[in-house]
Amino acid sequence: MSDDATRGGPEHRLERLIFFSDAVFAIAITLLVIEIKVPEVPHGAGDVAFINALLRLTPQFIGFLISFYVIGAFWSGHHRAFALAANWSPRLMLANLNMLMTIAAMPFFTAFVSDYGNTRVPVVAYCAWLVLTAEFNRRIQAIATRAPVLAKGCEAEAVLVRRRGTATLLGALTATIVAALAPLPSLGQAALMTIPLWRLALGRIEKTA
Amino acid sequence: MSDDATRGGPEHRLERLIFFSDAVFAIAITLLVIEIKVPEVPHGAGDVAFINALLRLTPQFIGFLISFYVIGAFWSGHHRAFALAANWSPRLMLANLNMLMTIAAMPFFTAFVSDYGNTRVPVVAYCAWLVLTAEFNRRIQAIATRAPVLAKGCEAEAVLVRRRGTATLLGALTATIVAALAPLPSLGQAALMTIPLWRLALGRIEKTA
Amino acid sequence: MSDDATRGGPEHRLERLIFFSDAVFAIAITLLVIEIKVPEVPHGAGDVAFINALLRLTPQFIGFLISFYVIGAFWSGHHRAFALAANWSPRLMLANLNMLMTIAAMPFFTAFVSDYGNTRVPVVAYCAWLVLTAEFNRRIQAIATRAPVLAKGCEAEAVLVRRRGTATLLGALTATIVAALAPLPSLGQAALMTIPLWRLALGRIEKTA
Amino acid sequence: MSDDATRGGPEHRLERLIFFSDAVFAIAITLLVIEIKVPEVPHGAGDVAFINALLRLTPQFIGFLISFYVIGAFWSGHHRAFALAANWSPRLMLANLNMLMTIAAMPFFTAFVSDYGNTRVPVVAYCAWLVLTAEFNRRIQAIATRAPVLAKGCEAEAVLVRRRGTATLLGALTATIVAALAPLPSLGQAALMTIPLWRLALGRIEKTA
Repeated sequence: MSDDATRGGPEHRLERLIFFSDAVFAIAITLLVIEIKVPEVPHGAGDVAFINALLRLTPQFIGFLISFYVIGAFWSGHHRAFALAANWSPRLMLANLNMLMTIAAMPFFTAFVSDYGNTRVPVVAYCAWLVLTAEFNRRIQAIATRAPVLAKGCEAEAVLVRRRGTATLLGALTATIVAALAPLPSLGQAALMTIPLWRLALGRIEKTA
Repeated sequence: MSDDATRGGPEHRLERLIFFSDAVFAIAITLLVIEIKVPEVPHGAGDVAFINALLRLTPQFIGFLISFYVIGAFWSGHHRAFALAANWSPRLMLANLNMLMTIAAMPFFTAFVSDYGNTRVPVVAYCAWLVLTAEFNRRIQAIATRAPVLAKGCEAEAVLVRRRGTATLLGALTATIVAALAPLPSLGQAALMTIPLWRLALGRIEKTA
Repeated sequence: MSDDATRGGPEHRLERLIFFSDAVFAIAITLLVIEIKVPEVPHGAGDVAFINALLRLTPQFIGFLISFYVIGAFWSGHHRAFALAANWSPRLMLANLNMLMTIAAMPFFTAFVSDYGNTRVPVVAYCAWLVLTAEFNRRIQAIATRAPVLAKGCEAEAVLVRRRGTATLLGALTATIVAALAPLPSLGQAALMTIPLWRLALGRIEKTA
Repeated sequence: MSDDATRGGPEHRLERLIFFSDAVFAIAITLLVIEIKVPEVPHGAGDVAFINALLRLTPQFIGFLISFYVIGAFWSGHHRAFALAANWSPRLMLANLNMLMTIAAMPFFTAFVSDYGNTRVPVVAYCAWLVLTAEFNRRIQAIATRAPVLAKGCEAEAVLVRRRGTATLLGALTATIVAALAPLPSLGQAALMTIPLWRLALGRIEKTA
C-alpha cells in the first residue's frame, strides 16, 4: 500500500472534512423546520379556522424558506470551493469549524426572526449573523482556493469563487444596514438579493483594475 | 494527479451532491418520530390506562409510517436516478435544493395531519405538499437522467425512472383531489396507493404511442 | 469510463444504501439524548438540590444508555453484514427501509420506557418493538449475506452474521416474555443480556446438526 | 474483483466506522443550538426590550460556543488519529461506540450548565463528563494508532496524537477539580484552556525521559 493510499493521504483528510461539513449543513438546513410548530386549532373546527391557522404561519414559512436557501447557498459555495482543493492543510480545520459554527446557529436566528416578524432587533440580529457567516465563509474559501490546498490549473476558477464570497459578505452587510435604518426592518432580508449585483460590480471593478 | 482525479472531477462533484441529499433525506425521515410525544399517564396507573394511551397515538403512528415510506420512496427514486448520472451540471444544484426543501418540510406536514387526523385542510395540505415534492422530484430527475448528466448507454433505464416520477406526481394530484372532495378526507392519503396504477397506465400509453 | 465505473455500478448503489443507513442510525442514536430534559431546580438552590435533580434523571440516563448500545449493536450488525456484500439487488431497498423504520422509532419507545420506569406496558412495548427491529434486521441480513448480493468466498462469515441476527431476535423475544410476566417488568430489559447466550446455543445446535 | 476490493476490505470497514462517527459528531454539534430557545418578548415591545432579551441569552450562547469547539476538538482528534489507521480491528467497534456515547450526551450537559450558569453541580457534571469523554477518546485513539490498525511508517505521528489525547484528559481533570473547589465554579470551564499547557508539559517530560 503506497503512502498516499493510506487514510492519511491528502484525498482522505480532505474528504473527511468535507463529509463532516456536509453533515452539519444538512442537519442545520433540516432542523429549520422544527421551528414551525403545528398550529393549535379546536378539534372539530371548520375549514376556515384551519386555513386561517395555516395562514398565520406565513412568517414561519417565509423564514424557513429564506434560511433554507441561504444555508443552501453557503453549502453550494463550500462545494464550489472544495471542488478546487487537492491538498490538505491543517489550517483548514479551525477555519472550517468557525464557518460551521455560524451555520449551526442559523436555526436559532431563523426562529427568532420568524416569531417576531417585522421587528428591528431580530432582523438586524439575523442579518448581522449572516455577516459573520459570510466572513467565516470567505476565510475558509481563502484557504481552500489558494496554495498549498488549491489544485494545479484551477487559479482562474478560484478567483471567481473568492469573488462570490466577497459579494456575499457585501450583500449581508447591505442587508444589516438596511435592516437597521429602513422604516420597514424586513427590507433588510430583501436586501440580501443585492448579492448578485455585488458579484457583477466586483467583476467589473476587477476587470478595469 | 490527473485532472479528473482532483476533487473537481465530475465524480466528486456528483458524489458530494448525492451525499448532502442523502443526509437531508435521512434527517427528515428520522425527525418524523419526534412528533410522536410520550403520552401523559398518571404514575401508578394500571395497564389498561397505558394501553389506551398508546392506542390514542394511533394517528401519530400512522402518520409516521406513511411519511416514512413516502420519504423513503422519494429517496429511492433519487437513488435510482443518480445511479444513471455520470457527469456534473451546475443546473443540478438549485433543482436538487428545491426538492430537498420539500422533503425537509415533511415533518411539519406530517405532524399537522397526524394531530388533526381525519380533517380536510391538514389532509389537503399534506397531499398538496406532496404534489410540490413530486414536481420538484420530476425536475431534478429530468436533469439527472438526460444529457449531459446521463451516463452513456443508460437511456432505456432513464425513461423508466422518469415514468416513475410522472406517476408519483399523478398519484399525488389524485390524492389531493380525493382529499378535497371525498366525504372522508383521509381517503386522500389512501389514494397515494394509485401511484403504481399510474405507472402501469403510463407504461401502456408510451407503448401504444 | 467503463460501465462499472459509472455511478450505476454495484459498488456505488450499495455504498449509497449503506451511507443512507448509517445516517439514519447516527441520527436516531444521537436524538436519544433530547429526551433527557434539563431538570428544573430553583435558581440559587444548594448543591444537594442539584445533585438530587440529577439523580432523579437516573431512569432517563439508563434508558439512553440501553438504547444507545442497542442501536449501536444493530448498526454493528448492519456493518458486519454489508462488509460481505458485493452486488446490488433491488430487493435490498424495501427490506432496508423496514429496518431503518424500526430504528428511527427507537427514540419514542426509549422516552416512553424512561419516563414510566418500571411499568409493564412501556417495558413490554419497548421489548416488543425490539422484536420487530430484530426481525426486520434478520430479513435485510438474509438478503445481504446470500446470493446474488454476497461476495464470493464469504459464505462462512455469512453464516455467523445470520446466527447473530437470529440470536438477537430470540433475545428480544425472551425480553418481551419476561417483561410481560415477571413481577418486576424492567427485568425484561435485563433479559436482553441473554443475546450472547442464544448466540452460543445456536452455535452448538448448528454444530451438532 | 480482488478480495480486498470487496466491501469487506480494511479500507471499507474503516471508512464506514469513520463515516458513522462523523455523522454522530455532526448531529451532536448541530443539536447544541436547539437548547437556545427564542426569548419571549411582548409583541410590539421596543428595541431595548429585544436587546435585553438577547443579552439574557448570553450564558446559552457561551455554553453553545464552548461545547461546539469542545466537540469540534474531539472530532479533530478522531480525524487526526484515523488518518493514521490503515487496518481493521474488531476492537475498534465498542471503543468507538463508547466515545460516541459521551459525545451524543453533550447537548444535555451543555443545556444543564447553560441554564444554571455559574452553579457548582452543573459545572462539575459538565467537566466530569468531559473527563469520561477524554478517557474514552484516549482508548479509541490507543487502538487506532497502534498495531495492527496503525499504517506503516506513522509511528512518530501516532505518538503525537496519543500525547494530545492524554493532555485533553489532564485538562478535563484540572477543569473538574477547579470547578469543584474554586469560589467561582465557572472557572472550571475556563481551566479547559490548560489543555495546550499539558500538551507542552507532556512533550517536555517525554523528551527528557
